[in-house]
Amino acid sequence: MTSDREKNSESLEPLFSPKSVAIIGASHNPGKPSGRPLAALLKNGYRGKLFPVNPRYQELFGVKCYPTLRDVPEEVDMAIVAVPAAAVLAVLRDCVEKGVKAAIVITSGFAEVGGEGARLQEELARMARQSGMRICGPNTMGILSSPSRLVANFAIATLPEKVSIPDFLGFVTQSGGFGYGIYEMIQSYGIGFSHFVSSGNEADVDFAEYLTYLAKDSHTKVIGGYMEGIKDGAGFIRAAEMALAQGKPVVLIKTGRFAAAAKAAASHTGALVGSDRVYDAVFRQKGIIRVESFHEMLAVLTVLAGGKLPRGNRIGVISTSGGAGVFLADKCAENGLELARFSEETRTRLARLLPPFASVNNPVDITSAIMVEPALLFECSRVAAEDPGVDMLVICHGYPAETMERVAALNFFEKMAGFVRGADKPVVNLLWGHQDSVQQVVRALTERRAPAIYEIEYGVRALAALAKYNAKRRSFKGRSAPPPVAPPAKERAAGILAKFGPGAKITEYEAKKILAAYGIPVTREELVTDAQAALEAARQIGYPVVLKVESPDILHKTEAGGVILNLQTPAEVASAWQQILNNVGRCNPWATIKGVLVQEMLPRGVEAILGIGQDDVFGPTVIFGLGGVLVEALEDIAVRIPPLTVEDALEMTEEIKGRRLLDGFRGLPPVDRKAVAEAILKISRLALDFPQIAELDINPLICTSQGVKAADALIVLKG
Amino acid sequence: MTSDREKNSESLEPLFSPKSVAIIGASHNPGKPSGRPLAALLKNGYRGKLFPVNPRYQELFGVKCYPTLRDVPEEVDMAIVAVPAAAVLAVLRDCVEKGVKAAIVITSGFAEVGGEGARLQEELARMARQSGMRICGPNTMGILSSPSRLVANFAIATLPEKVSIPDFLGFVTQSGGFGYGIYEMIQSYGIGFSHFVSSGNEADVDFAEYLTYLAKDSHTKVIGGYMEGIKDGAGFIRAAEMALAQGKPVVLIKTGRFAAAAKAAASHTGALVGSDRVYDAVFRQKGIIRVESFHEMLAVLTVLAGGKLPRGNRIGVISTSGGAGVFLADKCAENGLELARFSEETRTRLARLLPPFASVNNPVDITSAIMVEPALLFECSRVAAEDPGVDMLVICHGYPAETMERVAALNFFEKMAGFVRGADKPVVNLLWGHQDSVQQVVRALTERRAPAIYEIEYGVRALAALAKYNAKRRSFKGRSAPPPVAPPAKERAAGILAKFGPGAKITEYEAKKILAAYGIPVTREELVTDAQAALEAARQIGYPVVLKVESPDILHKTEAGGVILNLQTPAEVASAWQQILNNVGRCNPWATIKGVLVQEMLPRGVEAILGIGQDDVFGPTVIFGLGGVLVEALEDIAVRIPPLTVEDALEMTEEIKGRRLLDGFRGLPPVDRKAVAEAILKISRLALDFPQIAELDINPLICTSQGVKAADALIVLKG
Repeated sequence: MTSDREKNSESLEPLFSPKSVAIIGASHNPGKPSGRPLAALLKNGYRGKLFPVNPRYQELFGVKCYPTLRDVPEEVDMAIVAVPAAAVLAVLRDCVEKGVKAAIVITSGFAEVGGEGARLQEELARMARQSGMRICGPNTMGILSSPSRLVANFAIATLPEKVSIPDFLGFVTQSGGFGYGIYEMIQSYGIGFSHFVSSGNEADVDFAEYLTYLAKDSHTKVIGGYMEGIKDGAGFIRAAEMALAQGKPVVLIKTGRFAAAAKAAASHTGALVGSDRVYDAVFRQKGIIRVESFHEMLAVLTVLAGGKLPRGNRIGVISTSGGAGVFLADKCAENGLELARFSEETRTRLARLLPPFASVNNPVDITSAIMVEPALLFECSRVAAEDPGVDMLVICHGYPAETMERVAALNFFEKMAGFVRGADKPVVNLLWGHQDSVQQVVRALTERRAPAIYEIEYGVRALAALAKYNAKRRSFKGRSAPPPVAPPAKERAAGILAKFGPGAKITEYEAKKILAAYGIPVTREELVTDAQAALEAARQIGYPVVLKVESPDILHKTEAGGVILNLQTPAEVASAWQQILNNVGRCNPWATIKGVLVQEMLPRGVEAILGIGQDDVFGPTVIFGLGGVLVEALEDIAVRIPPLTVEDALEMTEEIKGRRLLDGFRGLPPVDRKAVAEAILKISRLALDFPQIAELDINPLICTSQGVKAADALIVLKG
Repeated sequence: MTSDREKNSESLEPLFSPKSVAIIGASHNPGKPSGRPLAALLKNGYRGKLFPVNPRYQELFGVKCYPTLRDVPEEVDMAIVAVPAAAVLAVLRDCVEKGVKAAIVITSGFAEVGGEGARLQEELARMARQSGMRICGPNTMGILSSPSRLVANFAIATLPEKVSIPDFLGFVTQSGGFGYGIYEMIQSYGIGFSHFVSSGNEADVDFAEYLTYLAKDSHTKVIGGYMEGIKDGAGFIRAAEMALAQGKPVVLIKTGRFAAAAKAAASHTGALVGSDRVYDAVFRQKGIIRVESFHEMLAVLTVLAGGKLPRGNRIGVISTSGGAGVFLADKCAENGLELARFSEETRTRLARLLPPFASVNNPVDITSAIMVEPALLFECSRVAAEDPGVDMLVICHGYPAETMERVAALNFFEKMAGFVRGADKPVVNLLWGHQDSVQQVVRALTERRAPAIYEIEYGVRALAALAKYNAKRRSFKGRSAPPPVAPPAKERAAGILAKFGPGAKITEYEAKKILAAYGIPVTREELVTDAQAALEAARQIGYPVVLKVESPDILHKTEAGGVILNLQTPAEVASAWQQILNNVGRCNPWATIKGVLVQEMLPRGVEAILGIGQDDVFGPTVIFGLGGVLVEALEDIAVRIPPLTVEDALEMTEEIKGRRLLDGFRGLPPVDRKAVAEAILKISRLALDFPQIAELDINPLICTSQGVKAADALIVLKG
């Protein structure tokens, strides 16, 4: 169903750019949702034809009004539906009959109220599917589309007369009111919207489809959104990849981080994957920029409006206060940006400009010399921006109200903006000081398309996010697929899986056989059922060995006393054999015991976990983290959605907070990260090949400089 | 030296509130630092007498000018020194002779340029110490003091004509320019300054002294500051405690978080204590509110200006958009605030006000009903604010430009502000939308002393910080000192310490004797030097036992193969004895071996570390964290400065990220936190009793539901 629709995201064209619009249920009261769209369409110069429909009026705002849709003598491309909920379905049926291609249902009282409303919404969705007529909403605030001057929306009354960057941002919001707040804010800073959609209840067209439309739309340069949650994870990922491929940054606020934390599941890794964590992983994986507040979104958009992305993460800093330089250096480090090292030439040129007591190293402090010669600010900035070791530049200055006149007289803004526009890298002005004067400076610069931000912290965060985005964009272009897994792997694993029914728990011995089939190194081991066989197995494997009980009823083997490590002699094996049987018998006398595993004792290494989980929205997930208490206490895991690229797998090993442990620790040599990444990629393959796997848990995966080995594993099949 | 000064922080009175001021080196050019203070003092109506001193002028700005200070016929309380660096000392000598009580040296070219400047500064400091004349600077921007209308400052030209909250904030900054930027910003939002000090190079009066002055000052309600670093840690702590005792919140921006990370030291715990981490710990311990940006500081001050602190951390949320409610719920959880549960009565009252489809649970969504009836916003807010289960309330709404007139006509701001002022708990308006209209709303409300903030994120953070501050303030009031350690403890420990010289490493066996003297539980153990004695010791201690090499030359015993755990039989002990000698011999054939410890094998528990470190600024520190890889990988430790209160010690166990492990983990019962806190308190005592201890490292401290036991320990003495 979804895939059919994607093929023609042009089916959304009539929503955003209809040739004619009927407003069904239109009223003359511009204060009511039913009265506002017609007034707004007229006021803002919508270029197509308008057909108000309402039996109570002959005409509305000077436009002829029709009693029913059938009475409209011409073709209708799109309908805005503003009738009571109970009448909506009948009206939509009329629309289908009339050949209307798309409808915006602003009426509320559907799934959001439950009961009868939910039923009505199902009907509505069915009608959309069957007829092919696309529906925005219900319970939507509507759509705004600047290129066609379409204000099909009951909140926004007027398109802005003038914005600095027209048609820049395409925006989708799952909350009308909140999204509208963002709209008002963003455009008040001169950033124009190409399209703005309140997606409402998403009975038909959903968030991912709007994203796809905006990714393909020629007007939209950047995509923004407010998101609470989605149903079609796969569609969202495809849309995100399309935007990434097109080089259109996607900037989202996503709520629900904390509600999701309550979710629980059976195994350790399962319990760790709260749904918001998976969203976050998808965002990382597909280069979506997640922001945490309105002003952070504004900062990211402001920098993007400058039209340049940082090539790397080395930042140059010019400021008029030493304190500001120290503060900025902190913020840069905190956000993973590196202070650029200026070249000899840059330092010499700066020294020629600045008084002898000023610093010519990064960050540059212009000192109070700025009071005498304000032009120093962009002269020094130009020099720093020309240094090839600088990937982006911030210019940090403050404005007391009293200097504004003097600054304006100097043609300061023209000169600064001219330099910023001409630079071949992002240059951002970060301001502090009196709110009125800073507002004036921010306006003067952004109007001239020079990014300026009244919050140092957000400015730095935005640059850091965009440096990361650009790196992701490049790695996505040059991404490499993992080497294929040989076909017998799947066949062999399928053979083992076939022995188990739905909901089965596949314990260590056979779980590892499946891993081994996919080329994931596992411990040498043998499953035995008597002490004599255990001794023989130990001899063949070589001492020291480990003994472990194998039972689908004992999943926490260590806690049950079912694991004894580091057995050095046959005598120790014999005694451990008895001890395990005793312990396990005490712990769970009814457990089915398949036998005891005799296993090689692995050398010291870093304990990791590697596994597969399931997410309601995105399906199978691949999980990597460090083992033991780290994961338990801090949920320090990296999550990705298969299929993974080689770059994704390496990124997972770099993303975890405990990554230092992989770089050599307490005298151990660094872990072979390539081997870790290979194991991750194989697990990704396995997750795709066998959707019946609900959970897979390699815990621990022992990682050393020589490679990795699965020391224990468990697979749970879907029920 | 410092303590003498503190006793008379009134010695700073002439800096802030002089009866007469001489401006030495005054000039007629109001654009230069030497010309600005006199102009500003005159313009802003300073009430004392003014004596410009400069041989080149007869008069300046209409005031009689004297060739030298000696020529001034009257007493001079305070002098502003604006002569070239080379002339400063001579001028200060004149001041001392004349009986001037305090001086502000705005001249730069001292320690900040090094060399001759540093020498000059030492001279200046010596003169201050010897004469008792207090000096602000050198290299300072100067002082502003509103109560005496003193603008002794070369950046600020004019006191604001009108602020909403006069004389509210006392501010100290270690960066003139940056601090001035904060000043301009904060007062442009209507928050008035009582005093503003740029502390310059702090040759005499330092940050802590200014803090003390402001804590005692009757005008100042709240203290703010920008800090890069201090020298007198003890003085700073005393000042912070004084402010806390007075109920004056201290809000600081402190930079240098990342530079400090590079610092390295010998032992694990030592390496973990970067200096900024210690500052952060002091801030926590003494209730200082650390903010990360200008706008976050503004948000905290805005809420404080409302004059009420949250009694607990339960927050009520009223918003005009469901999306905003979801967003806020996230932000609250993220910052440790709890959504209040409304009482039955509150819900009933809300239901009477709101349309049936609106939510009467927290967060309340007023829905688009707000478009029809804007008064709903404060009517619902009043109901929520009256719920006794609500400790603080946020009202979250957005303003499109077009509704402003309508809103103003409704007397909306008067009503809202009246309600906010009358509430018995903090009520904060969080705004979104068009920058111009929001600015108008923020002004209208804050002018009426109702806190309003244009950034939801910072508003929530500010409330969370103040809830925490208030809890700290109360716990400081009711703080309890730990039970005293019996006197023989110190004597016994001193006896052992006496055997070691400076720089000595006291290994496990004797380190534990010192711990035991202070009542910290340690493992039962015996130090033996032959295999036979080891067997006998094992018999007495009881199996299983542990064998550990004891050598000052082998500090990482495990890595050297010098530790063998879980020995069950005499045969295992005998074999382990040999193995340890072999391992250690291989690892370091020249090591001095004091013997082998035979030690009880502790039951499973949570491994923690507990220790003492040293900080350049604050002296001894107490460190607690979870052991093993957690500490290594994530630096997950809590730090405090002794002496500790009982509350401090408990707080340390709650502060670490891995705290979940203490609450019962993988089937273990919860750790006895009281026992952990007691051990922390004893270590705090030890740190104070023996300043010669450079480092102490209990690693691991085994924590169980039964108590704690030190399983290994090391003490390093200062060199």
